[in-house]
Amino acid sequence: MRNSLNPKVIIRKKRDGKKLNEHEIKYLISEYTKYNIPDYQLAAFLMAVYFQGMDFKETTDLMQAMMHTGKTLNLSEIKKPKIDKHSTGGVGDKVSLILAPLMASCGICVPMISGRGLGHTGGTLDKLESIPGFRTNLTLKAFKRQLKKLGVAMIGQTAEIAPADKKIYALRDVTATVDSIPLISASIMSKKLAEDLDGLVLDVKFGSGAFMADLEKAKRLARTMIQIGKRFGVQRDSRCRKIKVIAILTDMNNPLGKYIGNSLEVIEAIESLKGRGPKDLMEVTFALGKAMLKLAKIKGGKKLIEKKIANSEALNKFKEIIYYQSGDVRIIDDYSRLPVAKNRIKIKAQQTGYIHHIDTFDIGLLLVQLGGGRLKKEDKLDPSCGFKIHKKIGDYVKKGECLMEIICDNRSKARAVAKQMHAVFTIKRKSCRSKKLIRETIH
Amino acid sequence: MRNSLNPKVIIRKKRDGKKLNEHEIKYLISEYTKYNIPDYQLAAFLMAVYFQGMDFKETTDLMQAMMHTGKTLNLSEIKKPKIDKHSTGGVGDKVSLILAPLMASCGICVPMISGRGLGHTGGTLDKLESIPGFRTNLTLKAFKRQLKKLGVAMIGQTAEIAPADKKIYALRDVTATVDSIPLISASIMSKKLAEDLDGLVLDVKFGSGAFMADLEKAKRLARTMIQIGKRFGVQRDSRCRKIKVIAILTDMNNPLGKYIGNSLEVIEAIESLKGRGPKDLMEVTFALGKAMLKLAKIKGGKKLIEKKIANSEALNKFKEIIYYQSGDVRIIDDYSRLPVAKNRIKIKAQQTGYIHHIDTFDIGLLLVQLGGGRLKKEDKLDPSCGFKIHKKIGDYVKKGECLMEIICDNRSKARAVAKQMHAVFTIKRKSCRSKKLIRETIH
Repeated sequence: MRNSLNPKVIIRKKRDGKKLNEHEIKYLISEYTKYNIPDYQLAAFLMAVYFQGMDFKETTDLMQAMMHTGKTLNLSEIKKPKIDKHSTGGVGDKVSLILAPLMASCGICVPMISGRGLGHTGGTLDKLESIPGFRTNLTLKAFKRQLKKLGVAMIGQTAEIAPADKKIYALRDVTATVDSIPLISASIMSKKLAEDLDGLVLDVKFGSGAFMADLEKAKRLARTMIQIGKRFGVQRDSRCRKIKVIAILTDMNNPLGKYIGNSLEVIEAIESLKGRGPKDLMEVTFALGKAMLKLAKIKGGKKLIEKKIANSEALNKFKEIIYYQSGDVRIIDDYSRLPVAKNRIKIKAQQTGYIHHIDTFDIGLLLVQLGGGRLKKEDKLDPSCGFKIHKKIGDYVKKGECLMEIICDNRSKARAVAKQMHAVFTIKRKSCRSKKLIRETIH
Repeated sequence: MRNSLNPKVIIRKKRDGKKLNEHEIKYLISEYTKYNIPDYQLAAFLMAVYFQGMDFKETTDLMQAMMHTGKTLNLSEIKKPKIDKHSTGGVGDKVSLILAPLMASCGICVPMISGRGLGHTGGTLDKLESIPGFRTNLTLKAFKRQLKKLGVAMIGQTAEIAPADKKIYALRDVTATVDSIPLISASIMSKKLAEDLDGLVLDVKFGSGAFMADLEKAKRLARTMIQIGKRFGVQRDSRCRKIKVIAILTDMNNPLGKYIGNSLEVIEAIESLKGRGPKDLMEVTFALGKAMLKLAKIKGGKKLIEKKIANSEALNKFKEIIYYQSGDVRIIDDYSRLPVAKNRIKIKAQQTGYIHHIDTFDIGLLLVQLGGGRLKKEDKLDPSCGFKIHKKIGDYVKKGECLMEIICDNRSKARAVAKQMHAVFTIKRKSCRSKKLIRETIH
């Protein structure tokens, strides 16, 4: 009697904790993408999903509905194993910049479609675009051409792949409905399954700088995405190719690496490709890289990866990416060609002791305040600013010792951020040990 | 560090179950009313409130924020006690049509500002507008003039009183966020406190045809509104006049009266004013009327009310309302001047037994399907159609006996509704008693 293909009835059904069927979900997503259902109804729906969740069937129905609003790639001409890596987002996470060329140099095809930074998290695209001239808006045709030629390309989400996701993600961002397992899973997998991958490695982050602070919740998210990969794949013609997924749970209670900020992170990534990467960043890079090699059935593991760094093949691959995507390759050897702020403010410890906690989420938000991130999609970025982190959880500091530096030429913004930075670090007398960075691997 | 006067941060705070302060609520409501916060953010906020609720302080902050987006009436020139009645909405609830003239004839000033039907509930305005020529869109000036002259006027919500409520209610309706105690309380009280009342009688409905199916939830709603009345009032100059509120909990498991549908309910209301009202309808009318007299400190109770019906003073007052509001007064004696459909379809019992349940909510939605209600604010109404209810909960019916009639000249719609009507009635062999209509009075 109450027509179920009616947005209000569907919202109420989810609000009341009932399960939605495939038709209802497909109707909601496809009509929303066609602008036939307004933002405010989808916003209420997303908040209802935030509270009531979705079971596995609903999540995969949502993922498929989103995927089928757009095209799916066909990379069957490329014979190399096609493996991508996706991170759920963190602070200082420049692993993609290192891993994409590194894995391509190991013989994997890496069709990497990345996002922009939003809220406290940075975005691979923004970092790449701090390289003068670098283009991330290739057409799918140019993307494919580069993949065939180089084995790797790094582009932004196009309007052709899962347009529903682009529209829904923008809405989730402004309605505080980002951190929901079914919504995150459907969002990530609708794009990744459209990429025609053989395998996917997920870096699922937890801790103060991640969307999922809680390890158990991060694990549930990882398991959901692995299950989706096991049961669904790119459907082309009549066959359905499953996709193998490995999820690695990594600790985001500390920023990753020493630098945060767009061009600063590009420099740190290049340094890493030159064999001078910081320990924590390289640990995550190696773990994800090993998983990608495993999915690609390429032998050699960590040794192979280290070799590709040592013999500069990975660095040269990054140079090629920059060259093919119209960037200035000279930045590889001359960092002064990247926009980097000169003005620095040191944040000093106000007491002696051990660092017990860093509010990494707030560091991400302070980067936004500095101009290096965005709260809204339209916000323009200052790629030159950022932070250098000197101390992390478990470190001993003396009063007056430098905890971190603010790097920003807008002095009034830098000062405003400096005032708020002390609250980010919790220092106590009692000693405190840092926790394991790579917490668990699930597949 | 995270600016709290930011819609996204406010949504997240409520989503996470935290309490909002006065500034945050005021900012959200006033900026939304000024179109500076988009519908989609408020929709997500409303759904978060649906799940997380609001405490009394937040509810009154919300109510005041909504009230202060508009004007408040000043009826101090009128010396009569000013008492209004408000119903939380039901099916077949035409009590306002009877009570407004009836109470005015008892010496109460009744400044009644009513709403339109939406979803399964009917609206006083729609019913009045089925009277040819009847105008409900008086200016506040004309409204006041008529109140002084007649002691009663029945108009629709103007843009001047609590404009936030109009905008928010429209959004709640399409986002399935209507049935939330803080949202309902703030919505009702923001308008009623702006009416400059001395007292307010609330008909809080529960059961299958009400927004609140559950009696306990309806009681909580009633108590919240009574508390708001006790602590807040119309603030004019520096004084703050409290408003006395009595809430009567009435059973909405059955439609009220025999008729549902706009012009059909006008006829039933006139019949009631002529002393021929159905028992259940009159029981609710008397209970609410007695409460209004009590708040007005007018003695006489039920006897006075019955007298005003017997001596036709109440009926004449209704005639005056129609006359002053440009309606055709001849309808009082000649119902054929009202638009009433001729075509009738009888719904017959498919088995012998007792009626255990009526899905009154669905009857309301079937009226919408017939054309007599609306799902969206823009929908046009057919005032001529509706239902006549022959049997109610507890009644014994024989197989083939008439349960109710569908009255509608659009034969295909009538047939489509007829097919769905049997499912509304649950008939069982076992006998079943009807429950008390007036369940509780709270003040």
